[in-house]
Amino acid sequence: MQCVKVLGGVVGAAALLGLGIILGHFAIPKGTDSPAPSVSVPQDLDLELLETVMGQLDANRIRENLRELSKEPHLATTPRDEALVQLLLQRWQDPESGLDSARTSEYEVLLSFPSQEQPNHVDVVGPTGDIIHSCRRSEENLTGEQGGPDVVPPYAAYAPPGSPQGLLVYANQGTEEDFMWLSNQGIQLQDTIVLTRYGGIGRGAKAVNAAQHRVAGLLVYTDPGDINDGKSLPNETFPHSWGLPPSGVERGSYFEYFGDPLTPYLPANPSSFRLDPANVSGFPPIPTQPIGFEDAKILLCNLQGILAPAAWQGGLGCDYRLGPGFQPDGIFPAGSQVNMSIYNRLELRNSSNVLGIIRGAVEPDRYVLYGNHRDSWVHGAVDPSSGTAVLLELSRVLGTLLKKGTWRPRRSVVFASWGAEEFGLIGSTEFTEEFFSKLQERTVAYINVDISVFANVTLRAQGTPPVQSVIFSATKQIPAPGTSSLSIYDNWIRYTNRSSPVYGLVPSLGTLGAGSDYAPFVHFLGISSMDLAYNYDRSKTSARIYPTYHTAFDTFDYVDKFVDPGFSSHQAVARTAGSVLLRLSDSLFLPLNVSDYSETLRSFLQAAQQHLGALLKQHSISLGPLVTAVEKFEGAATVLGQHISTMQKGTPDPLQVRMLNDQLMLLERTFLNSRAFPEERYYSHSSFL
Amino acid sequence: MQCVKVLGGVVGAAALLGLGIILGHFAIPKGTDSPAPSVSVPQDLDLELLETVMGQLDANRIRENLRELSKEPHLATTPRDEALVQLLLQRWQDPESGLDSARTSEYEVLLSFPSQEQPNHVDVVGPTGDIIHSCRRSEENLTGEQGGPDVVPPYAAYAPPGSPQGLLVYANQGTEEDFMWLSNQGIQLQDTIVLTRYGGIGRGAKAVNAAQHRVAGLLVYTDPGDINDGKSLPNETFPHSWGLPPSGVERGSYFEYFGDPLTPYLPANPSSFRLDPANVSGFPPIPTQPIGFEDAKILLCNLQGILAPAAWQGGLGCDYRLGPGFQPDGIFPAGSQVNMSIYNRLELRNSSNVLGIIRGAVEPDRYVLYGNHRDSWVHGAVDPSSGTAVLLELSRVLGTLLKKGTWRPRRSVVFASWGAEEFGLIGSTEFTEEFFSKLQERTVAYINVDISVFANVTLRAQGTPPVQSVIFSATKQIPAPGTSSLSIYDNWIRYTNRSSPVYGLVPSLGTLGAGSDYAPFVHFLGISSMDLAYNYDRSKTSARIYPTYHTAFDTFDYVDKFVDPGFSSHQAVARTAGSVLLRLSDSLFLPLNVSDYSETLRSFLQAAQQHLGALLKQHSISLGPLVTAVEKFEGAATVLGQHISTMQKGTPDPLQVRMLNDQLMLLERTFLNSRAFPEERYYSHSSFL
Repeated sequence: MQCVKVLGGVVGAAALLGLGIILGHFAIPKGTDSPAPSVSVPQDLDLELLETVMGQLDANRIRENLRELSKEPHLATTPRDEALVQLLLQRWQDPESGLDSARTSEYEVLLSFPSQEQPNHVDVVGPTGDIIHSCRRSEENLTGEQGGPDVVPPYAAYAPPGSPQGLLVYANQGTEEDFMWLSNQGIQLQDTIVLTRYGGIGRGAKAVNAAQHRVAGLLVYTDPGDINDGKSLPNETFPHSWGLPPSGVERGSYFEYFGDPLTPYLPANPSSFRLDPANVSGFPPIPTQPIGFEDAKILLCNLQGILAPAAWQGGLGCDYRLGPGFQPDGIFPAGSQVNMSIYNRLELRNSSNVLGIIRGAVEPDRYVLYGNHRDSWVHGAVDPSSGTAVLLELSRVLGTLLKKGTWRPRRSVVFASWGAEEFGLIGSTEFTEEFFSKLQERTVAYINVDISVFANVTLRAQGTPPVQSVIFSATKQIPAPGTSSLSIYDNWIRYTNRSSPVYGLVPSLGTLGAGSDYAPFVHFLGISSMDLAYNYDRSKTSARIYPTYHTAFDTFDYVDKFVDPGFSSHQAVARTAGSVLLRLSDSLFLPLNVSDYSETLRSFLQAAQQHLGALLKQHSISLGPLVTAVEKFEGAATVLGQHISTMQKGTPDPLQVRMLNDQLMLLERTFLNSRAFPEERYYSHSSFL
Repeated sequence: MQCVKVLGGVVGAAALLGLGIILGHFAIPKGTDSPAPSVSVPQDLDLELLETVMGQLDANRIRENLRELSKEPHLATTPRDEALVQLLLQRWQDPESGLDSARTSEYEVLLSFPSQEQPNHVDVVGPTGDIIHSCRRSEENLTGEQGGPDVVPPYAAYAPPGSPQGLLVYANQGTEEDFMWLSNQGIQLQDTIVLTRYGGIGRGAKAVNAAQHRVAGLLVYTDPGDINDGKSLPNETFPHSWGLPPSGVERGSYFEYFGDPLTPYLPANPSSFRLDPANVSGFPPIPTQPIGFEDAKILLCNLQGILAPAAWQGGLGCDYRLGPGFQPDGIFPAGSQVNMSIYNRLELRNSSNVLGIIRGAVEPDRYVLYGNHRDSWVHGAVDPSSGTAVLLELSRVLGTLLKKGTWRPRRSVVFASWGAEEFGLIGSTEFTEEFFSKLQERTVAYINVDISVFANVTLRAQGTPPVQSVIFSATKQIPAPGTSSLSIYDNWIRYTNRSSPVYGLVPSLGTLGAGSDYAPFVHFLGISSMDLAYNYDRSKTSARIYPTYHTAFDTFDYVDKFVDPGFSSHQAVARTAGSVLLRLSDSLFLPLNVSDYSETLRSFLQAAQQHLGALLKQHSISLGPLVTAVEKFEGAATVLGQHISTMQKGTPDPLQVRMLNDQLMLLERTFLNSRAFPEERYYSHSSFL
């Protein structure tokens, strides 16, 4: 016995708070307390049923879903967002096509909105103080859907209010290097207004970088060279094509973290401890406003100063100069400055998630999660309603089979419609915070389908290594839209591929960053996750993303005419996601291939050897133990794979299969280390920071 | 989609380090890869077999184990400690009574030892610099076992070297309050040597508190009033009774945390990142040395200054005064000071754990862990060999049944002999760090039997709430030693009891602090844990602990004559621990009672209301959500209990039972919050900080 120090029994305030949350997890009624599941028959994936589901997923119903979902703007927590909550509830509670149960859960979260009384504005002010040019306060009403009180004017969410004024400087993408370069050119940045273009780094990072150089205010625009392949004229853009109109402005959150800003690591319940908004880190430090390229052109093409480097030039049809200030022989009088008047404010709002549950027949305590966010910036036909339209169609088909008694999955399936994603993945993050332990213990995988169709050319899949094989299996069985005989897989491999040391040429899976609601699942919980969508041919366009992203032009007609006429790509994504879901929920052996981590780890190791080898050698740090670890992993994964093969050939005992599946399910969790990156909120996955 | 920021694919050095560890977990061959377990029969606890085991646990064999184990001093990492590693391996690999497999695992850890060349010494130095009194450098050789090179002289492990000299001050137990009180009395503490007595707070805390008052050196002794019920004469103490002889000195670790000091959160493998020893926190900041009460009496009874408060007086037979310095009319000349010369040094040493494994027949991936440390300060007959003697006897009986083919547990059983516990639970902590994920996912419970017998009067059990019921069930079936007809339970309830709102009068379980190797299991991993021992009647003695604790008098003869003549209490603990182990490893339904957490949480809530109610009200903080959480927990636990009862009445399906058992096993884990107390290393259990 080492000592007699006894710390036990002390109940601190922190423990009490923790307790409240933790008990909440446990107190949720358990799946096993519901009607007793049937005995442990070796229920396995039914390929005929899978075919039935594939056949019933209907393109036209997806189109009608999208029409309804994107009929009106549904910014998070607005009445229309709440109306869609009801729509989802109603669909999932439908007696003929609904799920076992559906419910909402509300969180009180901190959002940011522009003032309705005092609109944000950006103006050029002459030396005598008169306004010479005013930037648009809203997008041009080209289709009748860009007007009205529900269209939120363009703004930078979480940017602070303020009225900075100063000479204009152009800073390219606003990266650290961009600002350093300007500084090294002797360009005075302090007290200026800086104009940057979207791309290169996250939104919030531009403001953080600018503030470090004492910039007073930040403008951000979308360059037609980055989104429209250079096209910028009204007749070359929407509603005449899928291009971004000159007045289009990308809204977005400028918050640097995700989750409710006031309750990091805690669900934003009424009783949770909240930070003082004044002490929140991660908000942009200076007033910031996005503008359209129509206005950016007027500002940027009149700048004085030296010519910007070639890589900083764009598609506005003029030479981009750096400033500071406007050229004396241009349209603005000498000494004209830019004034920004920003009136954003923070508001506590109630945001809802909607959860729809199908109880598993055999293993109700194993969950396959499928989610998308519901909230949009304006109509959000592509983002996120193209995903929600697919979600509703898939849940309808499965719900109908369920209600008919034709089918019940082996494991439980949870459909989720997340709230307030656009402000920083808030609904999904609060959900992972509230049910942290239970989700970690029980979740097989998370499937995210946010934007389901960026364009109608090829599948795009992102995910952690164990999900690669199930995506491959699913896509090999589904015909690709717009081709006569190719599968989605065969079509996909033509556009995005890599040479695998194990498999040869295969489609290439992307890495999951923090672009949608999968982020808290993979980074915070260590759950194998994926994001599925149809996309464009990257060799044919340099567009950063689909052009009307986060603008008032992302409407039903935009999708119907330019993104996916006929909705066959939506159907293809529904089938892919549906097949992946059924394989995960119904297969006796979980279709997660642990061996596919070996290849990824090996490639990380090689990257480390290549990029850090010399540096590590300098400091006498050996990669030997890491090499050994990767080798051990490869060996163990191979042995496990052989063990699964052997068992699959016999008549496996359900309890033995469960033990094996637990290993497959929990593999991703072993990469979690909550103490690894304390400064990177939520990031605990040691392989994918 | 919220943004296009992609962090993925970045491989940082931290991630690489993390990876090495994590892969290690996975790479360990899985239980399920061993000979395939039999099909999922509803194998349950066999009461006849339980009786057989109870009958075969032999008091005399435990006595012989103890004789062998405590024959020589076996301080961590010394040759005799390594010899015992081989002894354990040999026993667990015995063809007739061994386990399925046994292996050692080594960690390279930072320990602290006194210098052999320059012994630590404490002296009274007269005003002219001459030494007037020297404290003993070793204990008196009363039985022939207190001499020899393997008896480590008394020292304060991890106390820094140094030779402070100053006037002596008496500071009671060295608590913050004690030092504040002295300070308020106007007693100069700076540059003094302070004498404190053991008790009240942990060892290291005394040094930390002293250093905050700029004390130069710290002495610590055991007061006969705190250990011997006041007896202090040679003929009243060992070898004439179980009392501590005047020259006895309690050694111990003064490190404030646990685990290897250089590798917090990481296993101390050769490749792990190590802190610079100069930057380690938690070491005592000033030279420190423990002394016997024989020497403490000479120092303390000659102090000048005002009389210490009544609560500070002790059993040395004189008035305790505060100092500073000695009284002029005493045995020391005016102005005499105390000099401490400390030569402790830090050393990296290889410390071994020994693991012995019985593979589970049905659920090999569920573990019941049973452990004790192996290392002692000197002979360590009580601490820890009384526990190891029991461990060896239990593993012999189970191993014999296993080798005969009579029995194989439903779940896997892992026996562990931890190294370097006395320096701060190092072997067990490194084990939990190395196998963090796997242990969290798979461990049903941890049973710790460190000191198995403090004295032979009554059971003492500490544990988290879910283990109460299994300890009760076991102890109701085992006769208490030294009584004619009482069970261990019936005897226990006479000495330690409480009134339970649910059960009425029941024996009272203690709380697990950080006193032995259960600490990393419960606090770091959130595993339901317990510590079992036989103890004395607390109403009959005020002894802090058994008197020869951590001295060279803790020998086989001490146990054989004074602690447990006949070894029937050792046998009783072996039976209790064995019965608990078998119930946990073999019962179809895990005997962990989740409902027993309700009572504990309710009592914590009441304590919070009582002690913090007014304060919280002042700050408008409501306990309402916590009340709701506790109520929800109570409700859910009741429902779960009913569900178990119902299932037990039917013919339960093994897979369904597994799902339910997972809930029981993982309940304790839901209290973990690794971000709750970042400043309290390893403490993540929000109910038991």
